[in-house]
Amino acid sequence: MAPAHSSADGSGLLAPVWAGTRAAVVTGDAAWVRAMLDAEAALARAQARFGTVPDEAARAIGAAAAAIAPDPVVLAEEARDTSNPVLPLVRALKDAVRAVAPDAAQHVHQGATSQDVLDTAAMLVARDARALILDDLAAVASRLADLAREHRDTVMTARTLGQRAVPTTFGLKAATWLTGVRRAARRLADAELPAQLGGAAGTLAALGPPELAALFAGEAGLDRPLVPWHAERTPVAGLGGALAGVTGALGKIATDVVLLAQTEVGEVAEASGGASSAMPHKRNPARAILVRAAALQAPALASVLLAAPLGELERATGAWQAEWAVLRDCLRLAGGAAATGRELLAGLAVDAARMREHAASGDVGAAGALIDDVLAEDL
Amino acid sequence: MAPAHSSADGSGLLAPVWAGTRAAVVTGDAAWVRAMLDAEAALARAQARFGTVPDEAARAIGAAAAAIAPDPVVLAEEARDTSNPVLPLVRALKDAVRAVAPDAAQHVHQGATSQDVLDTAAMLVARDARALILDDLAAVASRLADLAREHRDTVMTARTLGQRAVPTTFGLKAATWLTGVRRAARRLADAELPAQLGGAAGTLAALGPPELAALFAGEAGLDRPLVPWHAERTPVAGLGGALAGVTGALGKIATDVVLLAQTEVGEVAEASGGASSAMPHKRNPARAILVRAAALQAPALASVLLAAPLGELERATGAWQAEWAVLRDCLRLAGGAAATGRELLAGLAVDAARMREHAASGDVGAAGALIDDVLAEDL
Amino acid sequence: MAPAHSSADGSGLLAPVWAGTRAAVVTGDAAWVRAMLDAEAALARAQARFGTVPDEAARAIGAAAAAIAPDPVVLAEEARDTSNPVLPLVRALKDAVRAVAPDAAQHVHQGATSQDVLDTAAMLVARDARALILDDLAAVASRLADLAREHRDTVMTARTLGQRAVPTTFGLKAATWLTGVRRAARRLADAELPAQLGGAAGTLAALGPPELAALFAGEAGLDRPLVPWHAERTPVAGLGGALAGVTGALGKIATDVVLLAQTEVGEVAEASGGASSAMPHKRNPARAILVRAAALQAPALASVLLAAPLGELERATGAWQAEWAVLRDCLRLAGGAAATGRELLAGLAVDAARMREHAASGDVGAAGALIDDVLAEDL
Amino acid sequence: MAPAHSSADGSGLLAPVWAGTRAAVVTGDAAWVRAMLDAEAALARAQARFGTVPDEAARAIGAAAAAIAPDPVVLAEEARDTSNPVLPLVRALKDAVRAVAPDAAQHVHQGATSQDVLDTAAMLVARDARALILDDLAAVASRLADLAREHRDTVMTARTLGQRAVPTTFGLKAATWLTGVRRAARRLADAELPAQLGGAAGTLAALGPPELAALFAGEAGLDRPLVPWHAERTPVAGLGGALAGVTGALGKIATDVVLLAQTEVGEVAEASGGASSAMPHKRNPARAILVRAAALQAPALASVLLAAPLGELERATGAWQAEWAVLRDCLRLAGGAAATGRELLAGLAVDAARMREHAASGDVGAAGALIDDVLAEDL
Repeated sequence: MAPAHSSADGSGLLAPVWAGTRAAVVTGDAAWVRAMLDAEAALARAQARFGTVPDEAARAIGAAAAAIAPDPVVLAEEARDTSNPVLPLVRALKDAVRAVAPDAAQHVHQGATSQDVLDTAAMLVARDARALILDDLAAVASRLADLAREHRDTVMTARTLGQRAVPTTFGLKAATWLTGVRRAARRLADAELPAQLGGAAGTLAALGPPELAALFAGEAGLDRPLVPWHAERTPVAGLGGALAGVTGALGKIATDVVLLAQTEVGEVAEASGGASSAMPHKRNPARAILVRAAALQAPALASVLLAAPLGELERATGAWQAEWAVLRDCLRLAGGAAATGRELLAGLAVDAARMREHAASGDVGAAGALIDDVLAEDL
Repeated sequence: MAPAHSSADGSGLLAPVWAGTRAAVVTGDAAWVRAMLDAEAALARAQARFGTVPDEAARAIGAAAAAIAPDPVVLAEEARDTSNPVLPLVRALKDAVRAVAPDAAQHVHQGATSQDVLDTAAMLVARDARALILDDLAAVASRLADLAREHRDTVMTARTLGQRAVPTTFGLKAATWLTGVRRAARRLADAELPAQLGGAAGTLAALGPPELAALFAGEAGLDRPLVPWHAERTPVAGLGGALAGVTGALGKIATDVVLLAQTEVGEVAEASGGASSAMPHKRNPARAILVRAAALQAPALASVLLAAPLGELERATGAWQAEWAVLRDCLRLAGGAAATGRELLAGLAVDAARMREHAASGDVGAAGALIDDVLAEDL
Repeated sequence: MAPAHSSADGSGLLAPVWAGTRAAVVTGDAAWVRAMLDAEAALARAQARFGTVPDEAARAIGAAAAAIAPDPVVLAEEARDTSNPVLPLVRALKDAVRAVAPDAAQHVHQGATSQDVLDTAAMLVARDARALILDDLAAVASRLADLAREHRDTVMTARTLGQRAVPTTFGLKAATWLTGVRRAARRLADAELPAQLGGAAGTLAALGPPELAALFAGEAGLDRPLVPWHAERTPVAGLGGALAGVTGALGKIATDVVLLAQTEVGEVAEASGGASSAMPHKRNPARAILVRAAALQAPALASVLLAAPLGELERATGAWQAEWAVLRDCLRLAGGAAATGRELLAGLAVDAARMREHAASGDVGAAGALIDDVLAEDL
Repeated sequence: MAPAHSSADGSGLLAPVWAGTRAAVVTGDAAWVRAMLDAEAALARAQARFGTVPDEAARAIGAAAAAIAPDPVVLAEEARDTSNPVLPLVRALKDAVRAVAPDAAQHVHQGATSQDVLDTAAMLVARDARALILDDLAAVASRLADLAREHRDTVMTARTLGQRAVPTTFGLKAATWLTGVRRAARRLADAELPAQLGGAAGTLAALGPPELAALFAGEAGLDRPLVPWHAERTPVAGLGGALAGVTGALGKIATDVVLLAQTEVGEVAEASGGASSAMPHKRNPARAILVRAAALQAPALASVLLAAPLGELERATGAWQAEWAVLRDCLRLAGGAAATGRELLAGLAVDAARMREHAASGDVGAAGALIDDVLAEDL
């Protein structure tokens, strides 16, 4: 179990958007080490079901994998000689297995290659982070739907190019935000998170037929890959794009909140944690700012993942190794933005009177009907 | 009709990957101007069907829109005062309509805002470019399937981190490339290309109910948007990610071709246009290099589109205006990479004997079965 | 001579920030072709001075290079077979020389490689664009100095995180903008723009000693490179960073103008081209928006140039070819931002009364002294 | 004192390029907290010298700042309410001062704003990391100079577009690499690292005249800023570009090493840590791969810093907050690349015989003279 506040891999001191969030925990160093061990255990179980590893060996491997927690600092430094941290991890796991079941040690990591384990672990981490992100996005969406309903008739001025324009409603704004959040959530939910199993060359030599890879994916709890994707990184690129989609949709909301919360506008305000709200328009939109900070980083980081497919032949000389930290950062930024966006919206104060006061007279067209269409849409 | 070789907007002198390709034509300045006029015509037709514009006015607008071809240079420079080129275009269209049907001129652009027209035009251009890209990707996929079949048993060495490793087959390599291309094609095909109609504030005020937007989308030949997306740019972000996905999948192939075509490796070679191929291993992999050049640019460009959602309130002060050229570049890079990748693969010479010679002995595992799985997959 | 409005390579329809500017002209396709021809002529002159090309041949080459203007469209499409446009250009130049001086044709491009010509041409284009950019930045700086002086005591509110804070002065704001513009101008002025001459392998084989490269740089009007940089692209990376520095410094000004021009703030306004200014606070900040659009694209584009050094061995397989269009775009965005920023500031209306009205009472600290320090600084 | 292996802020598990390096330590969370405290102490000292804080209070603040080590995890989570970690840090420092010198507590952070402390701390961290980077780059440069001298006449084939071309020498390659490293080192050494002091609005109100800022910079050991740069972020953008310049120059070396170390080429090999080197050409170029991984991330990260100037008015709503983690990552990637590149080159085995064997006959032009020019250049 990762600790509630992982300090082994980044406190978030420089990234308050995800500091202390659940996304920080499930993407921490301890979680990555855990995921690598889980991948090894899942492989042994799959091989046991397939008959190429004895049942008792698989059980011993699973028990040892669950019991140990190699120090990430040590793994990291040993990784410098091989360019990835799987070798020292496998050594540690073999040692642990050997101590209790000497015959089982030879079956640890049997037929696999480092990339099988690290890629599968990355997808396990992504899966856990995604579940949290989707949960937070669902709460965001629900709150936005409430805001859209509640403010169906709250007239406010539209602002184009920074200038007041004709009227719209805050309900339509919330409904429009909602469509972005839904689209982002859908894209993320649709992202393929495949297990990776291929062995040294991606042929499954020394492993078995494609069915073994399917069993492995099932044991790991990931999507079944059609073929090994060690050298075909479009799933990583797709995930990067989807995560930047999440920060984008939330960043839009945050941008609007920051602008509407300006002293001169004062149409919305963030709840401040327990502070008296005698002067609601003077509160800093702290959570919106954090969400924007995430949204300003994620596209550039995602661009690294979008370039991941360019790796060379059967294992890349840099592009693969560049994915790891960037993928984690993208998961954290999206996770932090979702958690923080949820808090932001939960506490958002809307000053409907002030909105109306700022709006020119004029009709708001089909705003209500558009809101209804959004609310009627099946997510 | 755009000319076969548009010179009005970029010869491709600095971008041979798309120079002279069909994608260059359908994304040229003339094509954008045409798309803006088509959007105006589609709006008039939709309004005629809806009853808010007389039929004869819609016909006059359609005829004038089809007949004129405002000079992009003039539009561009007039755009500097308003920050977008739609206003001078509408002026030109109104003048043309007025000349033949004075009463119809008032119905040009009726109720619409500049962004309705420019966004819809962008999606029309994207739609046309996408069709070409998907066509080229289908040809690429078909050729890769042939290569996978043909070289099902062509043993070659895998190369990891630049070092020869255990054997694989060229067929599996081709099949793996194919999965990337399919994934990229699917993602691009799935990208939403919505029409945009909202009027000044996105409420459809002065336009009509949501049904009018649906009629408009139908007339324009685009997806129906649930709500106006003038201020909700996740569709643009999604398109950017999908286009970088295309260059990524093709860039992977090109990277491998460049490496396998090295003098010292010599396992594949590009066909040179009609040149004698007495020394097949000395030929420069020119098309692979162009594809790689595209793939090295697209992720950074896509990052601009991934940031598009951060635009302010009902019209962004920079982020929207930053989309246009970048979206075109992404379409061109993906289009050029697809066309050039298709040529590259059509002419790819595979030296199976040399591949075998470089491979260590050893079994290729489930390579054949994996190929079969890929070939059996329904695209 | 490039035409006043080059339409051969981009009207700027999708990039009004540089449409019609001088930077567009000097970076157009015609200008690149001209620069490649100038590089060939400079090489012949240098070789004539060095004694490896007859004087009359160098003169014939210079005359022919000045006289022809190969169609960029044709060059671009021929470039697809060789992955760069220099070969067809050299063919055209040789033909032109041969027609008037048959013996001189053999001296065209003598000992050089394509990359020598294209890299040198890129630097020539960059040199011309830089001169314009620096000229515009000097005008911007001068105007900012005037604003700082004029508004030394114009109290306004600072705004932090979108909220009104303690007072500052508009003069200090202008002075602070000025420091950014100066820094960006200095960095750009300091950027090395070296000629490139190395021959096929970068050894100057078939060319001569390093002195020939120095002569060539002199004839071309560029910096002398210590060694050929065909495979050492940090100069390109540095230029990319410097150009993004320009859009950054100007983008900051534009961002503040957009915010101060908001309807609710109304402390500054852009001049609109000749329009009555009865309602100064309702004018769209069109030029500021265009500058921001440039500033939102340039960092991502610059990231492609920052990655240029990663090219392979003695000629890159994609990274070099990816530089060309991106470098042009960076030059155009910086050039457009500088020209547009200059217009923006020339017409900026400052509403000092409104500024004072919005400011809380309180002292403005050392604002005046800070302004004095900035104004006293020798650029 | 930061621990030798900081685990409080990232083990480097996912970034072996900097795991365990000195750069990791000086950029860790503990180092950032230390730097913030050092900034507070330097401010008190400067104010004491200036006469606005009693000497004994400054001493008490300095002593307390040196003594405490607030938990970054706690600071990070408290930062979520204010969007930066300085407020809780100041609280902790005040408490510590109050415990020993009650009257001094009021002088903690006197007149300053959060951004003064965080920006100054960022520059202190950057200064320390830069010193290490420049030290490693000097060692890299020295080793490259040795290689250039030693292999002045080691003929090898140039390779353009992946194909063998005419001959060059390994000495020229090393000398060319050296010019890139020198350029990157120079640019980084030239980067301005200014202290930041401005108070709430950047006017130095409640602080003093510009001289106080100069005293503060001196006490902190940083460059003196002409004006507060809280809202003028071109120094951050410049630093980002310079750091990507470092990874670029080193990434070029690493790219070439990976390619020359390919099984089929085998002209260089990395030393492996103590392993028998019976088969020198089969060793994975692990360090080169790690350097490349850094170089593939840094340009995208730098693009975030290049966009830093776009922050709003007197304090940005996202762009500033987005700088922190990205700047740290850039420092770590450059620091890791420099340390790892140094190791890579220290152990690089050059197979001169194999190089000669692969080279065609032919002259190597001015290779020797070019090397001499590079070696003669005063760094």
